Amino acid sequence: MAKYGFIGTGLMGNAMALNLINAGHELTVFNRDASKCKNLVEAGAKQVGTALEVVAAADITFCMVSDPQAALSVCFSPHGVIQGISQGKCYVDMSTVDPQTAEKIGISVQARGGLYLEAPVSGSLQPAKDGQLVIMAAGDQALWQKVQPAFEVMGKKSVFLGEIGAAASMKLAVNMMMGSMMSVFGEAMSDVDSCNLKGQDFLDILSEGALACPMYAGKGAALLGENYSANFPLKHLQKDLRLAIQIGDDKQLPLPSVATANEAFKRACQLGLADEDMCAVAKTVK
Amino acid sequence: MAKYGFIGTGLMGNAMALNLINAGHELTVFNRDASKCKNLVEAGAKQVGTALEVVAAADITFCMVSDPQAALSVCFSPHGVIQGISQGKCYVDMSTVDPQTAEKIGISVQARGGLYLEAPVSGSLQPAKDGQLVIMAAGDQALWQKVQPAFEVMGKKSVFLGEIGAAASMKLAVNMMMGSMMSVFGEAMSDVDSCNLKGQDFLDILSEGALACPMYAGKGAALLGENYSANFPLKHLQKDLRLAIQIGDDKQLPLPSVATANEAFKRACQLGLADEDMCAVAKTVK
Amino acid sequence: MAKYGFIGTGLMGNAMALNLINAGHELTVFNRDASKCKNLVEAGAKQVGTALEVVAAADITFCMVSDPQAALSVCFSPHGVIQGISQGKCYVDMSTVDPQTAEKIGISVQARGGLYLEAPVSGSLQPAKDGQLVIMAAGDQALWQKVQPAFEVMGKKSVFLGEIGAAASMKLAVNMMMGSMMSVFGEAMSDVDSCNLKGQDFLDILSEGALACPMYAGKGAALLGENYSANFPLKHLQKDLRLAIQIGDDKQLPLPSVATANEAFKRACQLGLADEDMCAVAKTVK
Amino acid sequence: MAKYGFIGTGLMGNAMALNLINAGHELTVFNRDASKCKNLVEAGAKQVGTALEVVAAADITFCMVSDPQAALSVCFSPHGVIQGISQGKCYVDMSTVDPQTAEKIGISVQARGGLYLEAPVSGSLQPAKDGQLVIMAAGDQALWQKVQPAFEVMGKKSVFLGEIGAAASMKLAVNMMMGSMMSVFGEAMSDVDSCNLKGQDFLDILSEGALACPMYAGKGAALLGENYSANFPLKHLQKDLRLAIQIGDDKQLPLPSVATANEAFKRACQLGLADEDMCAVAKTVK
Repeated sequence: MAKYGFIGTGLMGNAMALNLINAGHELTVFNRDASKCKNLVEAGAKQVGTALEVVAAADITFCMVSDPQAALSVCFSPHGVIQGISQGKCYVDMSTVDPQTAEKIGISVQARGGLYLEAPVSGSLQPAKDGQLVIMAAGDQALWQKVQPAFEVMGKKSVFLGEIGAAASMKLAVNMMMGSMMSVFGEAMSDVDSCNLKGQDFLDILSEGALACPMYAGKGAALLGENYSANFPLKHLQKDLRLAIQIGDDKQLPLPSVATANEAFKRACQLGLADEDMCAVAKTVK
Repeated sequence: MAKYGFIGTGLMGNAMALNLINAGHELTVFNRDASKCKNLVEAGAKQVGTALEVVAAADITFCMVSDPQAALSVCFSPHGVIQGISQGKCYVDMSTVDPQTAEKIGISVQARGGLYLEAPVSGSLQPAKDGQLVIMAAGDQALWQKVQPAFEVMGKKSVFLGEIGAAASMKLAVNMMMGSMMSVFGEAMSDVDSCNLKGQDFLDILSEGALACPMYAGKGAALLGENYSANFPLKHLQKDLRLAIQIGDDKQLPLPSVATANEAFKRACQLGLADEDMCAVAKTVK
Repeated sequence: MAKYGFIGTGLMGNAMALNLINAGHELTVFNRDASKCKNLVEAGAKQVGTALEVVAAADITFCMVSDPQAALSVCFSPHGVIQGISQGKCYVDMSTVDPQTAEKIGISVQARGGLYLEAPVSGSLQPAKDGQLVIMAAGDQALWQKVQPAFEVMGKKSVFLGEIGAAASMKLAVNMMMGSMMSVFGEAMSDVDSCNLKGQDFLDILSEGALACPMYAGKGAALLGENYSANFPLKHLQKDLRLAIQIGDDKQLPLPSVATANEAFKRACQLGLADEDMCAVAKTVK
Repeated sequence: MAKYGFIGTGLMGNAMALNLINAGHELTVFNRDASKCKNLVEAGAKQVGTALEVVAAADITFCMVSDPQAALSVCFSPHGVIQGISQGKCYVDMSTVDPQTAEKIGISVQARGGLYLEAPVSGSLQPAKDGQLVIMAAGDQALWQKVQPAFEVMGKKSVFLGEIGAAASMKLAVNMMMGSMMSVFGEAMSDVDSCNLKGQDFLDILSEGALACPMYAGKGAALLGENYSANFPLKHLQKDLRLAIQIGDDKQLPLPSVATANEAFKRACQLGLADEDMCAVAKTVK
């Protein structure tokens, strides 16, 4: 059995790492805020003080941090991942980053003889706990096959998409739909309200038809309850919309719905809602 | 057991009427193109030559025609529904119309002592066949209760929403989401393609996440197969978007995502796609 | 010299009527609020108590009221214009209305043997005072020629555009540009501000280039001075945008820029800015 | 009298350089395609073979190339501008670039003891020939004062805007309005056409009112004549819209009209119109 490492044990990473341990894998862990490894150590993990030490101890190191900035920092800081990479070491970055960041990390890993897989996930905290994430992978296909035992523990599905950058692009395609779908949902909730219809009736009807999706169930309840505490911070989705639009600009591809959503999300930021949940975009038409 | 009538036995109406017959209800039917009643007569229905005769023969008459124009014609033509309405006659219009049309019909039915319910449905042909429609009802609440046996046969859920016009408004709220969700889906499919990702991979990933909905499953396959034969004609959804935006204008409610979708659908009409399926809106960014 | 009548002597109408008197025309005037005719009577006009009396006294009656509602009321009320129309009477409606309203009035005038011209104007108070309006005319071309002496006094240019409705459509084409140009101007002013550039520098540069237009000069000063007192009320321009979009829907013509502007103007209304000047749309991105 | 240099003598630069010569200034010129200096040499300029030689010969070097790429290349290539900069040398870049590019060049010039001014212009070929450009300047204010004699020859107005990047930002603010104004103009021209009104009538009316601007006069004639030969290539304006939107993203500033225009311009590129004049965006709604 391969020796695993895990860098980044915040909300998502912690749940994923715990699933690996519970499945019987040997795991070395590191987190900048060391206290977030406590439950993992109790469950059997070995905690170390730097990313470099994780890579040194493990055959395959997973990483799950919050944004491109953090993903780069974990790799390129002193005592970072790259310093630990040598012939045959494997690095699987599951953070959500843009294609350029993925490429930067991948090239550096490969330059030292390592194998690299980008593997962002679709799904938030509950699916992470339940091992029900959807994993989008790209980069080294042999490594993708090699980590199947781990992916089967963390997710319900993993898809190999091609060369480095492909998984980041796929993730942005999903999230640009998320932003646009959330925008129109906010508009519809306002419309229903202005027509003196009950929001709950609308949600019930929606839930039975062709447009029914888990997001509307969750965010619908949040909007009705005016609960905007961040599950997925609005500013993060705005950043994804922006990255998606830049891809559209590069490809000379019109994305009018995404552009409209992006403007709504920027308006929300301008109104001071950047740190609320992304469903707070509904306030821009209220 | 109440005696039922059914006006409009096209694709949707035929399936709904057949379910009523199969559930043991006595049914009098009329359709402008009489040949479309043939299978219903074989199944036990009594066919007549005018809408007026249906209303004369039935306690409760259902109607399912294609648009406001047809709904008005069925009611106000010579030998139409209104002429047959007298004290206690019940009329349930399940066609999709705008609030003004619903009101016009409802007031005329009530003026002659009849009871009126507007009851547009969510769901297309297969749910109609399976008796799995979602029924949005408004108008006479006592009538809504009285027709529960019929609604239980035709649908999986019915919701009473309030005064006449409420059901039409609710239906437009649903369809404005449909138009916007379809638009961004077309954009995402083009984006995926321009990033050299496989459309099927995108659909698979979407199907496992928070945005998964029946429409994307169905229309995703249609887009990949370039199958634009009309299930729900594009021009009809454009008309719904237009009606939704007019409501927004009346209420001074901004609906930027809906407006953007409406422009895409109009562009599709301009390109000659009005009679293709509504998923053909994807061609405007291709 | 033809005997003229003038109905509607508010801000615009008063200035236009005064120019007719000063040019030596015999003028009979009526205004709902009679006090607004005072200066005209002093200048030589004959004031009467109903629209009907104006039409009775004049060969050619001009009308300038604020909206379609008022234009219809002036015509179809008891003692209104239509009752006074007989063979050969001429009616020139210079109010801004939609094509349908123009048609309704025109048909009624013609039905009684009268001649009808719709003649909305481009230009606000100062051009009205200076006799520098631009007059868009449609309907009876012989009448258009007959009223040239009056148009030459009130305007600097008049164009005959064709059948009834053509002038209303032309006016909406102009105003849909106005709404969209105002929207982007508000965005640019916010952008300049957020880049720590001086608004006055931006206006100066704009004024010297290919985009220089009288509106930006006027509204630019208003925005810098945060002067939103209504010159052209925001809600009126929103109504024009809405009418323009409905024409686009009828013609299956995509108008994405106009639709985006309309949403901004609706948002402004939702924020309580309906009665401020139309330049207050800039507040939606501030 | 200061000795001047001029790098980049294409259409715009040639006209500007010629004006400097005709005003009696000593001028050293360089252009990658040497043949484009011919008329300038005949008029009295001294032609050299590299940008470095221009800087070596001149006190103040002006540059006018087509895009950020070219502006960087002129500076940082071997035998480029930067190699020639020493204490007191002055460099005035009049090309249109983004703020980041301006900063990169400015810092390098200053690092070698030189003085830097960014000075993009508003106005195309005819104003360049006529010495009627509007010059937006930022960077070294003393240098701005020092080059007034040259600016007075090339332009009708120059404004000093502040620190490096300010002029690029101002230029983008102007051009984002241009893109949006052109988009809605195309929509209005289509609308007029679909209402069976004459385009020339529309242009005449527009030209007399509050929205009259030089661009509509010029591009209106081009659209009526279906003349899409590039005066300002569509893809360049799309690039400016894109840069403007990125500034909006950085500042969390919603720019819905600009975003809508950007999508129209991208659609035009997708339809193969990238190298046509920017007024070809009108074809996206035709």
